[in-house]
Amino acid sequence: MRTIDWAGDAVELVDQTLLPDRCVTLRVETVAELVAAIRRLAVRGAPALGVAGALGVVLADGDPAQIAELRAARPTAANLAWGVDRAAAHLREGREAVLRAALRVRDDDIAACRAMGERGADLLEGDRLRIMTVCNSGALAAVERGTALGVVQTLHERGRLTEVLALETRPLLQGARLTTWELARMGAPHRLVADSAGPYLLAKGEVDAVLIGADRIAANGDTANKIGSYALALGAERAGVPFIVVAPESTIDPATPTGDHIVIEDRDPEEILTVRGVRLAPEGTQALNPAFDVTPHDLITAIVTDRRVIRP
Amino acid sequence: MRTIDWAGDAVELVDQTLLPDRCVTLRVETVAELVAAIRRLAVRGAPALGVAGALGVVLADGDPAQIAELRAARPTAANLAWGVDRAAAHLREGREAVLRAALRVRDDDIAACRAMGERGADLLEGDRLRIMTVCNSGALAAVERGTALGVVQTLHERGRLTEVLALETRPLLQGARLTTWELARMGAPHRLVADSAGPYLLAKGEVDAVLIGADRIAANGDTANKIGSYALALGAERAGVPFIVVAPESTIDPATPTGDHIVIEDRDPEEILTVRGVRLAPEGTQALNPAFDVTPHDLITAIVTDRRVIRP
Repeated sequence: MRTIDWAGDAVELVDQTLLPDRCVTLRVETVAELVAAIRRLAVRGAPALGVAGALGVVLADGDPAQIAELRAARPTAANLAWGVDRAAAHLREGREAVLRAALRVRDDDIAACRAMGERGADLLEGDRLRIMTVCNSGALAAVERGTALGVVQTLHERGRLTEVLALETRPLLQGARLTTWELARMGAPHRLVADSAGPYLLAKGEVDAVLIGADRIAANGDTANKIGSYALALGAERAGVPFIVVAPESTIDPATPTGDHIVIEDRDPEEILTVRGVRLAPEGTQALNPAFDVTPHDLITAIVTDRRVIRP
Repeated sequence: MRTIDWAGDAVELVDQTLLPDRCVTLRVETVAELVAAIRRLAVRGAPALGVAGALGVVLADGDPAQIAELRAARPTAANLAWGVDRAAAHLREGREAVLRAALRVRDDDIAACRAMGERGADLLEGDRLRIMTVCNSGALAAVERGTALGVVQTLHERGRLTEVLALETRPLLQGARLTTWELARMGAPHRLVADSAGPYLLAKGEVDAVLIGADRIAANGDTANKIGSYALALGAERAGVPFIVVAPESTIDPATPTGDHIVIEDRDPEEILTVRGVRLAPEGTQALNPAFDVTPHDLITAIVTDRRVIRP
């Protein structure tokens, strides 16, 4: 199954807001629909957003306003703009050339995730690995295989995975809903934990490595990823556990010198005040909802890409 | 309003599982009912558990088996056993003496929380303070005023409080449900945030001090408190923000040399798999639910008690 793909004259994508209850494929025929799907996280994950951006340019049919709107739909994600730009570079050559470029973005992601999985598994030492991760960096965040969860998948295929401790990832629970669903499908042992338990379980010696994906990596290695990544990095440093970022080269943004220059998306406070439609706090409560955080490069043991291992 | 009190021949307590939707007072006439209320967190918070333990000895009417069961109902909380022991020391003198001792535990808590509030507010510098806290350490965790949230209340009464950033505190959401409810009642400005955002907001300079309560403080200052406290301590240390524990002397357990000796309660995994009755993860998912963590003393700036300020 592919998370996102081209289907003749439209983009097809798995609606991730309905998982794990239902696995529904959406057919997206316009840029407006695609932007709405990105904003409500029906499609999410840095590599998948790169493919969405590239395929969206085909839907835009050369309209610069639509392309600009698509490019800005998730400010924190480097790959979305990168995917848009890769396809848009061929606009003068006509629709078929744009489509070919967009399909290359898709195919490159499939190959890149496989390469990252192997490189990450080669990098880690030990045969009974207990991995902690946050959010979802699996096939659902990419096309066929994931980034950080792609490394987990390779470890599992090689018989080296003991357990994954998956953080639930409030507010939208990508860990509880998506990562558990993927791990169950690949038959990998896993347990779900509260986000706040991550650093403590690291201190207790329950984890051999932390693996996370990335939404944007600055030139100096500072990494924006789902909120909670920074807390895990602090916990990993104190526990002496490797903290490893797994992301395609396209997530590295040489135009962003440091993490201070990364725009962090503040999302709707309502996401904090409710869980799957159930109200948590008293009426009238205000909330603050930074959706991502930045982990400084000195807390990162290694960045694994499809081409290399970087030690910031 | 008192969170817990003696009502002639029974214990009355606010059922905290129903807040913020409904504020219902439970009448508890037997030790079995009281133990059940403690286990399902209808009554919670270290000082309130001390009072519950003491009043529960009156209900036990001298039965050693019931007293032992009550004493062990929450293993992480030092105050529960301490409150039981304070009342039980008078068993030979008869029921009236036990009741008098139990009411002294209640009255001492009221005085201790007021003293902690003042001492904590005196300790903090600045007139426009932005405070971060986790779980609920307010009046609902004590009798009339709280511990860490008692300091917040004193700061607010003195006009020195700008804002409280309250962590929602998964899995049982004491921050989202209880702390917001108390802060709204005292008219103190506050915003709710995801637990995982705490360390990042500290790094961004959004917080002047972290204030937390405690369930048990070891002789060396290592502090057990709600899961997530340790992550905040790591974040506060890196950000150079004071991390302050506020707890009555009765929370300090000289018989526990270090945090390694504190029993951490693993609670029902179902608390992680659901939120207020709504299922989050696929059927069959396993979970791990450590309810507390231990913050090592070197990460604690100060411990404020009703008698002194300790700098571990």
